Amino acid sequence: MFFRRLLSTSSSPLPPTIRQLLASKTTSAAAPPSVQVNGWIKSIRKQAKVAFAVISDGSSPQTLQAVFTKDALTATKTLTNGACVRLSGRLVESIGKGQNVELQVEKVECLGECNPPEEYPIQKKALNTDYLRDHCSLRARTDPIAAMLRLRSSTLSGLQRYFEDHEFCYAHTPIITSNDSEGGGETFSVTPSASSHTPQDKPPPDFFGRPAYLTVSSQLHLEALAASLSRVYTISPCFRAERSQTSRHLAEFWMLEAEWAFTNSVDDVTRVVEGAVRSVLRAPSADLGLLREDMDSARLESLRKAVEDETPWTRITYTQAIEELERASASGHTFEVAPRWGDSLRSEHEQWIAEHLVRGPVFVTDYPASLKPFYMRLNDDGKTVACFDLLVPHVGELAGGSLREERLDYLQKALEKAGLDERDYACLTNILLSFALQETGLWFSSGLLFSV
Amino acid sequence: MFFRRLLSTSSSPLPPTIRQLLASKTTSAAAPPSVQVNGWIKSIRKQAKVAFAVISDGSSPQTLQAVFTKDALTATKTLTNGACVRLSGRLVESIGKGQNVELQVEKVECLGECNPPEEYPIQKKALNTDYLRDHCSLRARTDPIAAMLRLRSSTLSGLQRYFEDHEFCYAHTPIITSNDSEGGGETFSVTPSASSHTPQDKPPPDFFGRPAYLTVSSQLHLEALAASLSRVYTISPCFRAERSQTSRHLAEFWMLEAEWAFTNSVDDVTRVVEGAVRSVLRAPSADLGLLREDMDSARLESLRKAVEDETPWTRITYTQAIEELERASASGHTFEVAPRWGDSLRSEHEQWIAEHLVRGPVFVTDYPASLKPFYMRLNDDGKTVACFDLLVPHVGELAGGSLREERLDYLQKALEKAGLDERDYACLTNILLSFALQETGLWFSSGLLFSV
Repeated sequence: MFFRRLLSTSSSPLPPTIRQLLASKTTSAAAPPSVQVNGWIKSIRKQAKVAFAVISDGSSPQTLQAVFTKDALTATKTLTNGACVRLSGRLVESIGKGQNVELQVEKVECLGECNPPEEYPIQKKALNTDYLRDHCSLRARTDPIAAMLRLRSSTLSGLQRYFEDHEFCYAHTPIITSNDSEGGGETFSVTPSASSHTPQDKPPPDFFGRPAYLTVSSQLHLEALAASLSRVYTISPCFRAERSQTSRHLAEFWMLEAEWAFTNSVDDVTRVVEGAVRSVLRAPSADLGLLREDMDSARLESLRKAVEDETPWTRITYTQAIEELERASASGHTFEVAPRWGDSLRSEHEQWIAEHLVRGPVFVTDYPASLKPFYMRLNDDGKTVACFDLLVPHVGELAGGSLREERLDYLQKALEKAGLDERDYACLTNILLSFALQETGLWFSSGLLFSV
Repeated sequence: MFFRRLLSTSSSPLPPTIRQLLASKTTSAAAPPSVQVNGWIKSIRKQAKVAFAVISDGSSPQTLQAVFTKDALTATKTLTNGACVRLSGRLVESIGKGQNVELQVEKVECLGECNPPEEYPIQKKALNTDYLRDHCSLRARTDPIAAMLRLRSSTLSGLQRYFEDHEFCYAHTPIITSNDSEGGGETFSVTPSASSHTPQDKPPPDFFGRPAYLTVSSQLHLEALAASLSRVYTISPCFRAERSQTSRHLAEFWMLEAEWAFTNSVDDVTRVVEGAVRSVLRAPSADLGLLREDMDSARLESLRKAVEDETPWTRITYTQAIEELERASASGHTFEVAPRWGDSLRSEHEQWIAEHLVRGPVFVTDYPASLKPFYMRLNDDGKTVACFDLLVPHVGELAGGSLREERLDYLQKALEKAGLDERDYACLTNILLSFALQETGLWFSSGLLFSV
């Protein structure tokens, strides 16, 4: 066939990144290899006989120093901060300070000039977060945000690897749903929008045939899957129409959620959580150094200490936590709201427990049933449920989970107590009816680990 | 501190799955190890002196045969299909047909009975797809759907691994957005719903301060990130309010999208796609055998052949494809709609190209600009754009992508031609203005590989 084009498959379709070039360490004084580097100029310093540019391609926090002499020097005339370049040359050992290797440039290709360079806002001085919020196309071009994005990527991949190593199946559950799996009612509605481009093809208002919402959690769907596959997890966006505007209450956020069958105790669940978080935090990353000190130092120090010590993290019950809080209160510690059994733990209480009482990550378990959603398993005391929150100093509530109520009559009572219609949760009661199992579930807000 | 509980960290918090037990091959006639198996009874056959049950935990398509004698036999009285059990016993070599090892049960724990067992619908006869659509809690309990879920999981993980091995950063982009990155206008609107549970806490109608939509594609956001990190990808839900009800046009679907900088040609992009798809399809899976023959045999055979042959897949241009279609038409092949340069390729045309002309996967490249979105890079002929669709026989359009228009004046003209307001795409034009780069992007609909 005349149109068949055979392509060489011997070389990679993608050129090496700066991270790969710096990691390959193939410099040798005798015959330094010729390489091609693509990236952006973070800064450039031109002198009479030589110019130096710092090149970044975002593949790692490391940058490459490019050195321009002779013909290459002439080509730097039009180069400015922010310009996009393709440089060919040789990687040689650097005699300068701050880097082991540098690129001796032989050929300069300017892929895109920065227009106008004098207005390019990313200079040595850091831009503040508010400015970046209003200029979203600039955000990822700053060191701290780029570092955060890379950390977020490696954290998510690390969590995924942990769950896959433990035989969990990765599933996607519906985002548009008619369920409200938390029973909280703070949902967003979804309707087809009137289109300005295709008026004649306007979808009917009863697009889904019934009210449709954005999911608040994948839990119900994962429970149904766990009743077949035993272990499932998802990484999915969730939506809550809460008015609060803090980093703890976002309208849209991504969660890792896992559900699995055949668990006996909350202790086992906390061990899975501790294993997953430790596995992620143990991985060293040069990106941590790029996060802004003023923003994250307490949080980063807390996370570092959390994995340095191999002693398992602390577990205390809600009831013990309240006793300790009351004792602290009695001995003179002032809380804005007095701790009392049956009330939610306020941020100030959680902070005191993690940062003063335990001084490290702590699983608070067995909260009163009245404070938690209907699906958590009632303990034998008839008052508390088999659940946990993981509190980390300077981070907050990082994960939570519970055993799921598998006794149909208990679940029906809990739904009634919560004022929810059993028919809306028929999927759940059907699972229990036919596929009785001891299930458990948890969520991670990985975004809390590294965020602005 | 009295509340600190040290947990043994020596053992895994999760018991072994049936997949792990069967893979460990630790049976030995001398001292078969004692194991605990959790799962559901797929079928049970009781005789006077022995009972046999097929146990599944969904960890793999493989099941475990459990053999009950003596005391264990008595305990099988209440066991039925669908019951949830925990069995302790010894893994021994099987003398029966169909399995290498079997479990000689010593202890039976029934975690949940199947109520009522005579109505449990999952028996040897397969349930049809329509029935399963109406009984969603049953779906994952059937062999073909469970196999599909596991295949989907391994496919997604495989694609992620490919992109991570090639230095792509995994990012999440906003789902609720004010952008319409395709310019197609078929979007869903998002508004806070009036809550029945918390009427006093109803969010204001101007929740976001401007109209908000569900994303149709992560592309614009990924382009901004690629202008800093060079290579980014996401796996994200996308939403299109299209009225068509086929598996090719879903209101909600998940896509893998990738954007990267520093690409010169569509050829390089198709090599990335071919590499990714081949890496995923090469992994052998016992689950393929469980997919229903009637549903997938042509598709599976096509995918098998696509990777068996190491010859790179075919590339043809749209213009060449039209010439071939016209030639076929002239020699007597009847198409419902006659092929003509400038018109979209219909499904019948795509099928003929993949299944008759090429007889394998084919990248059709360089479509007329008028058929494609505004952001694709105009070729030197001024008529076509640097893009591709990957057509796979019996699967359809599996992936697509293009070089992105990096020349600001060209992009402005394309926006104008598409009737779109440049101000709505200021983020994009800003990227080009400041961070000029040669970018490319693609999408994969991994769901098309394995779906019902």
